[in-house]
Amino acid sequence: MTAPPASTIPLAALERFCCAAFAAIGADEPTGEAATRAMLHATKLGVDSHGVRLLPHYLKALEGGRLNKAPRLTRAGGLGAVEVLDADHAQGALGAYRGMERACDLAADLGVGAVAVRNSSHFGAAGAYAMAAAERGFIGLAFCNSDSFVRLHDGAERFHGTNPIAVGVPVAGSDPWLLDMATSAIPYNRVLLYRSLGTVLPEQVASDAGGADTRDAEAAEMLAPLGAAFGFKGAGLAGVAEILSAVLTGMQLSFDIPLMEGPDFATPRRLGAFLLALNPEAFLDRAQFDAGMRRYLDRLRGSAARAGGRVMAPGDREWEVAAERRIAGVTLDPATAAAFAEIARDLGIDPAA
Amino acid sequence: MTAPPASTIPLAALERFCCAAFAAIGADEPTGEAATRAMLHATKLGVDSHGVRLLPHYLKALEGGRLNKAPRLTRAGGLGAVEVLDADHAQGALGAYRGMERACDLAADLGVGAVAVRNSSHFGAAGAYAMAAAERGFIGLAFCNSDSFVRLHDGAERFHGTNPIAVGVPVAGSDPWLLDMATSAIPYNRVLLYRSLGTVLPEQVASDAGGADTRDAEAAEMLAPLGAAFGFKGAGLAGVAEILSAVLTGMQLSFDIPLMEGPDFATPRRLGAFLLALNPEAFLDRAQFDAGMRRYLDRLRGSAARAGGRVMAPGDREWEVAAERRIAGVTLDPATAAAFAEIARDLGIDPAA
Repeated sequence: MTAPPASTIPLAALERFCCAAFAAIGADEPTGEAATRAMLHATKLGVDSHGVRLLPHYLKALEGGRLNKAPRLTRAGGLGAVEVLDADHAQGALGAYRGMERACDLAADLGVGAVAVRNSSHFGAAGAYAMAAAERGFIGLAFCNSDSFVRLHDGAERFHGTNPIAVGVPVAGSDPWLLDMATSAIPYNRVLLYRSLGTVLPEQVASDAGGADTRDAEAAEMLAPLGAAFGFKGAGLAGVAEILSAVLTGMQLSFDIPLMEGPDFATPRRLGAFLLALNPEAFLDRAQFDAGMRRYLDRLRGSAARAGGRVMAPGDREWEVAAERRIAGVTLDPATAAAFAEIARDLGIDPAA
Repeated sequence: MTAPPASTIPLAALERFCCAAFAAIGADEPTGEAATRAMLHATKLGVDSHGVRLLPHYLKALEGGRLNKAPRLTRAGGLGAVEVLDADHAQGALGAYRGMERACDLAADLGVGAVAVRNSSHFGAAGAYAMAAAERGFIGLAFCNSDSFVRLHDGAERFHGTNPIAVGVPVAGSDPWLLDMATSAIPYNRVLLYRSLGTVLPEQVASDAGGADTRDAEAAEMLAPLGAAFGFKGAGLAGVAEILSAVLTGMQLSFDIPLMEGPDFATPRRLGAFLLALNPEAFLDRAQFDAGMRRYLDRLRGSAARAGGRVMAPGDREWEVAAERRIAGVTLDPATAAAFAEIARDLGIDPAA
């Protein structure tokens, strides 16, 4: 497959292209909108691993039957400020956005809302849902688990997924405070990147088949949990995501989840997700909350940096990329560009340009 | 000060001694009980930094006026499943235990409960409160911030405290799953220990006055956030604790908190804390939840270990220590043993033995 020449594409054109592709394969509008919104969140912020490069994957999963093209999301249980949402095997972003919406609705009335999503699937960047809460003025937390890729502390087999934790906090008059982190030392994509570049991995981020640390990207069989010598912390945080998003939802534990990359694209993967929203106004005046966040962030951003370093709040690097990409657009990686050209041809839709 | 000879003391004797000391200086019963319970939690589990060695510190703070000997804890706000608890400058464990109790009460009725504690103080081991929730059958999360000791990622000054995050999850018929972690790479006590031993620190856990990594314990001016080269994750997690326990409570940010070690022991420190409880039965059947936790833990504990390593769930190491100490008692470190002897003499109470 020969890659077309790289060229920049405006974010709006990518958005139109994704929506058109979902519509062309017969996915309903809420599915296309949610999946596109989540991918564009990541692409806009420079988190390309979870950006529009996932479009071919989601189309394949919708066409194969793993994902439901016209899901009926329903309330399947709950109590007070808790709701269980059955996503009916929807594309994961739809379940997660709906879940966070409900968590925010509950938090508006009851100060806090917690939503367990059942029968969902890969939801992309966890930060997309934390961000959705922050956009409504709430503190949002999002968790999910995923197929096994990360060893335990002192472990020698893939156990947890990269199990992300995301937290978004509204900041008056500015972009939110946004933490979106895998609980593994690095994402698996980094290993693939280092393989393709032929360079050595950082220390203590990946292990060989026996669990021993390796810097050889080719030999890397599993990721290390965050924390290196203190990897019991990263593994513990992965456990928090696992318990909230799989145990509490009654969904699949990481080691039971069929591989995201197939070959089976017909069977629903039965992933869970967990969303929590906190309403700052249930705790204190909005003005006091806003002033507290402002003071915290001003001090943080003005904090002394070490030589050659730069101190940033979670999300700051991403807002800078977003500001650039809003103007300059995005250059797709060659594989994604080629896949997009093929999708346009196959589905008879206008190419992304 | 000459240390008395080391000897082991039963846990029950330590408990009696702490309670007697609090009573002797005129602290009310709830204060003595809560402070003792939290210290014994840590001592029992082998977390000696947060164990009974804190007794002299708490007595000093109560006698100095920093802590209120007879606080009136009151509901100061809230909405639905959220409550704001004003701790009236109580010893921190009292505020945090009460806060978690209320969070569990709310979770019993509404599935989830979130409590912001105001006007509190140092609460010791965050795990004590997560554990209290788990003992009632709830998932508990506890957060607090503390005086600045940890640089930001690429930072060159003390910014966050060691801002712990604790999560406790009930496991039917067994000790809970219990994560209690500082968001710094190591606790500051480790630096003190390495100084006294004259050994070098692990890599990338502490920095000199310019923020540069140092393995020289004497030169260590600040701690690194968890994650080493990926310290933005540890700093981000410290931020989660900071936002929930200080911004959302309207209490002091880490860099505003008067030093725990004084010299001022008269002024209340106005710390916040944040407690959250989730009721598993709001999400699914208790039996299904229990089976999920059992399956997760069985697989985790049976997971392959790397050469020389051992795979454990969060808390497993601590339950082993607890089992030992329940039988063998505890040997106090020399400084604490001496301080206890002095307390017994000064307050006219029976020595711990």
